[in-house]
Amino acid sequence: MRPLDLPLGFKYSTAYAGIRKEAKDDLALIVSGVPAAAAAVFTTNKVQAAPVKLARANVRASKGVCGAVLVNAGNANCATKSGDKVALSTTKTLAKLLKLQPTQVLPASTGVIGVELDEKLILNKLEDLVAGLNDTALPDVARAILTTDLQPKGASREVTLRRGTVRIAGITKGSGMIHPRMATTLGFVMTDALVPQTLLRRMLVRAAEVSYNRISVDGDTSTNDTLIVLANGASGVRPDPKEMSIFEESLTETLQSLARQIVRDGEGARKLISVEVHGALSDAAAAAIARAIANSPLVKTAIAGSDPNWGRILSSAGNAGVNFDPETVEITLQDVKVCRNGLAAPFDENDMKQRLDDTDISIVFRIAGKNKGSATFWTCDLTEDYVHINANYRT
Amino acid sequence: MRPLDLPLGFKYSTAYAGIRKEAKDDLALIVSGVPAAAAAVFTTNKVQAAPVKLARANVRASKGVCGAVLVNAGNANCATKSGDKVALSTTKTLAKLLKLQPTQVLPASTGVIGVELDEKLILNKLEDLVAGLNDTALPDVARAILTTDLQPKGASREVTLRRGTVRIAGITKGSGMIHPRMATTLGFVMTDALVPQTLLRRMLVRAAEVSYNRISVDGDTSTNDTLIVLANGASGVRPDPKEMSIFEESLTETLQSLARQIVRDGEGARKLISVEVHGALSDAAAAAIARAIANSPLVKTAIAGSDPNWGRILSSAGNAGVNFDPETVEITLQDVKVCRNGLAAPFDENDMKQRLDDTDISIVFRIAGKNKGSATFWTCDLTEDYVHINANYRT
Repeated sequence: MRPLDLPLGFKYSTAYAGIRKEAKDDLALIVSGVPAAAAAVFTTNKVQAAPVKLARANVRASKGVCGAVLVNAGNANCATKSGDKVALSTTKTLAKLLKLQPTQVLPASTGVIGVELDEKLILNKLEDLVAGLNDTALPDVARAILTTDLQPKGASREVTLRRGTVRIAGITKGSGMIHPRMATTLGFVMTDALVPQTLLRRMLVRAAEVSYNRISVDGDTSTNDTLIVLANGASGVRPDPKEMSIFEESLTETLQSLARQIVRDGEGARKLISVEVHGALSDAAAAAIARAIANSPLVKTAIAGSDPNWGRILSSAGNAGVNFDPETVEITLQDVKVCRNGLAAPFDENDMKQRLDDTDISIVFRIAGKNKGSATFWTCDLTEDYVHINANYRT
Repeated sequence: MRPLDLPLGFKYSTAYAGIRKEAKDDLALIVSGVPAAAAAVFTTNKVQAAPVKLARANVRASKGVCGAVLVNAGNANCATKSGDKVALSTTKTLAKLLKLQPTQVLPASTGVIGVELDEKLILNKLEDLVAGLNDTALPDVARAILTTDLQPKGASREVTLRRGTVRIAGITKGSGMIHPRMATTLGFVMTDALVPQTLLRRMLVRAAEVSYNRISVDGDTSTNDTLIVLANGASGVRPDPKEMSIFEESLTETLQSLARQIVRDGEGARKLISVEVHGALSDAAAAAIARAIANSPLVKTAIAGSDPNWGRILSSAGNAGVNFDPETVEITLQDVKVCRNGLAAPFDENDMKQRLDDTDISIVFRIAGKNKGSATFWTCDLTEDYVHINANYRT
């Protein structure tokens, strides 16, 4: 992300509020100079953190016109007595400082569940945070929101349209509790395009479906998952109706890039696995098969061990709960056919072993016939490190 | 299992056929001296191994009157060109030796998928196997069917009824690919009670639902899962209609004991985790919540690390796709309340850590209110060893 790529009209700031033990920034602020169209998707978990409930309510109450996002890492502000109060008081105080309506500030939190979050830690830092706002600190925000992630994650696009250029930039964090059916963990995407809110919302839902909803690290969905898009129109460029699909494509690509970065940086992950399914009864059936393969611990450990165990791929697909004839299945691993008509296809074991030592793994699952359903899903290998990290997270 | 506990009228035999590399028995035979009522449940995976297809067909074709079970370990006989032929030729040849109808022999296989199984290895050993049949070798059968399991698994019951005593004995193997919704991996249960086949089948389905269908090691369901019950009536005792429930209870207990042993011996497992849910809208809803908790890698790794991370338990329950109010939830870990009304309950961290170092872990998830749905699910902790075993299984 070069500063030049950043969308116009947004400012960023970070601070260390002392929420996490380690002394690195744990509080971040994103502000739009002008009220922006805001769209968001949230976790589908029955247990929802206080900031999720408030952000959802605020998007609705503000009619999707928001000005700021306040994020903290180190504490999920979930399943705590004071959760709602903390989310409310911090966003309200920030709104006052920014001269926004309280409902125009969207909160988001990530970290441990069930531990009270001391609102003073955040309240004490809000003035500093606002004073520190600047055009270029988006990478700092990307770092401040990390928990067990190793790498900050960002993606940006410039889209040249008939009326001018618009920019899209996003940051995200993930690592554990990554699972489909939801905007995964935290993601914030800014654009200076002028896009009506209702349209922005529809685009976000479609784009999330083929990006954040198509990744999995461990099959768990967090209580705090939040994906927000802000479109402030600061470029002065409104994509004309025919160009909206071009803009949407770039938004989708941005989300897919962010989603893949989450998987690549999955807890303990060494390999990014892409699972492509073709020839299913429908796209939904293809997605179900791809999801079953991507979620199988047996497949994920086999890839960790560079083991071309296509039997596990076939077997996990058989658990997807959708119809297909196993005898029509062809499986390609790293561009080498390992299964044809549901049976072993001969391949060079040594060559394959080497190919599977790559950090990018491709599994293509093709069902012969005239059906056209297809889907792509991304996951990571399951390593001893995943277990190590998660057995020792809280204590 | 003392020989005295064994059901009358069954004989057992094992041999090393050279299917697995390691020179330990990989072929096992269970024979009833008189044709037995047979009931079986099989994997729900779309991809079904040849022995699963043939065993299902044979139970049907023989009208549930069978005389022998032929099991091999080391090769699943699944997704191979010759699979059906191997299953058919080996059971047919065995039937001839035992003077049974071909459909009265039920095959079962476990091991690697997608590698041709050489029928000669089995055919060459059938005469030896039949010659070696004896009353007491059930523990040898329990050992011969193991793959990555560490311990042979068996359970037995004596049931005293008005007309006399009947015996139930079962063996099982599991380890990886353990998941609910199915008779998991292989299980063979013998009884000398006289039970009509249709009744036996109904009992098996109900008993499997609260035993084999309530366990999970890694969420994967195998292509070969098979659970067979044989009731040969050799005791001469037919439970009278009022006593059938007593017999069914013992059958259920036997299956639950076997199922729990599978979990305790799960790949890499050090702890058996029991997840009890109470107060759900229905038993099915309770089972869905229990399953979601038991399948969560985050919960399973926390338990591996003796970390009382109740937030992960609450969060995984929220992913079960069933309705409950998080604010009415109470979570008890090792008899200590750690969450009340969806919030942290104070507990002694050091004491809890010690309690979680136990090899038997109890999680009780209780929803306050008047609903009565309850269910129990068993799983194991997720350790580095699980990953290590599965990254290196095939190669």
